[in-house]
Amino acid sequence: MEQLTQVKKQNPPQYLALCGGVGGAKLALGLSYLLGEKLMIAVNTADDFAHLGLHISPDIDTVLYTLSGKSNQAQGWGLENESWNFLSAMKELGQESWFQLGDRDLATHVTRTQLLKNGQTLSYVTQFLSEQFSIKPSVVPMSDHPVRTLIGIKNGNYIPFQHYFVKEQCKPQVDRFKFDGIESATPCPALIEALNSPCLKGIIICPSNPFVSVDPILSIPGLKEIIRNHPSPVIAVTPIIGGQAIKGPTTKMMTELGIPQTACSIARHYRDVADGFILDKKDSALKPDIEQLGLEVELAQSLMQTLADRIDLAKSCLDFITRIDGKAE
Amino acid sequence: MEQLTQVKKQNPPQYLALCGGVGGAKLALGLSYLLGEKLMIAVNTADDFAHLGLHISPDIDTVLYTLSGKSNQAQGWGLENESWNFLSAMKELGQESWFQLGDRDLATHVTRTQLLKNGQTLSYVTQFLSEQFSIKPSVVPMSDHPVRTLIGIKNGNYIPFQHYFVKEQCKPQVDRFKFDGIESATPCPALIEALNSPCLKGIIICPSNPFVSVDPILSIPGLKEIIRNHPSPVIAVTPIIGGQAIKGPTTKMMTELGIPQTACSIARHYRDVADGFILDKKDSALKPDIEQLGLEVELAQSLMQTLADRIDLAKSCLDFITRIDGKAE
Repeated sequence: MEQLTQVKKQNPPQYLALCGGVGGAKLALGLSYLLGEKLMIAVNTADDFAHLGLHISPDIDTVLYTLSGKSNQAQGWGLENESWNFLSAMKELGQESWFQLGDRDLATHVTRTQLLKNGQTLSYVTQFLSEQFSIKPSVVPMSDHPVRTLIGIKNGNYIPFQHYFVKEQCKPQVDRFKFDGIESATPCPALIEALNSPCLKGIIICPSNPFVSVDPILSIPGLKEIIRNHPSPVIAVTPIIGGQAIKGPTTKMMTELGIPQTACSIARHYRDVADGFILDKKDSALKPDIEQLGLEVELAQSLMQTLADRIDLAKSCLDFITRIDGKAE
Repeated sequence: MEQLTQVKKQNPPQYLALCGGVGGAKLALGLSYLLGEKLMIAVNTADDFAHLGLHISPDIDTVLYTLSGKSNQAQGWGLENESWNFLSAMKELGQESWFQLGDRDLATHVTRTQLLKNGQTLSYVTQFLSEQFSIKPSVVPMSDHPVRTLIGIKNGNYIPFQHYFVKEQCKPQVDRFKFDGIESATPCPALIEALNSPCLKGIIICPSNPFVSVDPILSIPGLKEIIRNHPSPVIAVTPIIGGQAIKGPTTKMMTELGIPQTACSIARHYRDVADGFILDKKDSALKPDIEQLGLEVELAQSLMQTLADRIDLAKSCLDFITRIDGKAE
């Protein structure tokens, strides 16, 4: 096995996507079709956790599997044609089996864990896996430092994200979040470099959960300011259509946090970092409210059911960036 | 999951088998049919190794899988109805894949590694797995201390056992062995207790490789003397029939070490620890030579092709022990 100790140099990306898991990865796939190596995807790693002695990076894996065409498209995570014999043997041994670990998926976790144990960075490991999967865009972790999302339970303590998300199936009521380790985290070197490069033409916040997928990235000290002040357009894509999230606990969390379940609330959430907001066509009535927040608004079909939908939405993102950029000049 | 910190007390065993992998496990299975909880099997752990971050105990697993009826009987190691999707994904990731790790087998290694990492002893882990597999005999590692067999290559250095055995398929010429860590190893507590108990009626050295399966056990400081001086009969079962080992590199090693490839050589190897030797009926001509060494000799069918063969040989062992014991009284 090749033992790189440094992340290989690539050309600086022209576009940067900030991304969580399933929903974000769909847009990332669309963007990768249009941009290939010109795209960098910085992925949330605050969902990462240690499980059965393995370092698991659920969002990175979802992005890698999606971009390599190996993902299980029906469920959005994990691998296609997966088998579950390891997990069933774990159950028979009375071991923890709440986290779905497929037999082939396990190879990713074992490889990552081994490389990290040998002193490689998560950036290196992610690039290594990315190369094995023949992925063209540069996929990077938001940080090489461990950051862990803790979910604050209403009238209760914090629980680790995966316990909330998978083990408890998002049932507990949430009223706060903590990103453990965030104070000492820095963006991964390739991400810093991309943000410092004059080549960067635009930044896209993917339609991921704002609270637990995008906020950890934006909470890395200094990163939000760098993005806000970046000369290129920053756009966010709504994860809410008609008051509903396509997947995951976004709207449930909004209710519990006392935030109206609309795309407007998401736009408000990103107003201090983004220049533009992609609103679903179905929510066009909200356009004036979002413009009132000082954001440019683009209407698009943001529901991504087919590959064509993903590419279309990606195209809308790039056009929107060009439009905002044109206005600024 | 139950978190025992101590190995559960069982009644002291009446018979003790010293055992390596495939060949030894066959006799252990026969003995377990006849003796159930009255049997303790002390297993070689000098084949253990760390691989892909996992603690793998090949001989213990072979014994556990064999005794639970879960083993792949055709190959003697691993599990029946195994799948290999993890390993195939590892190959695709360019990772080490020379050691056969089945998807279900992996659950054993992950569980063992986790329990050891949590501070449990190998004795505890082995008992835990043994209970999960509903195994009646007490299966114990020879020691809770790490001991590692190194194979001395003719005109070369030492290589770790699994590299020699699996990766190199026993091809290198051998001229010496080293059991790394043996000086500070002690027998596992249950083994010491069994040897000190007045209940122990006999000790059986299974037909395993004498050099790399049984010698590591007998090389634990003080253990050989305790066994040699034990008031109950100690018998060894030949792993050689008609100058050939059924499986594994025993006879190849004998040639390379300059030892004649006969059951006589094995008897000579064990003469300072055993009272009796089970010789295959086909080798009956060697009986006088082995008696000359001061050993009692029993003729038996030692080739174990069927379960009935395993039980028959086990019965021969117990009868032989009774016969030797009767003579002594």
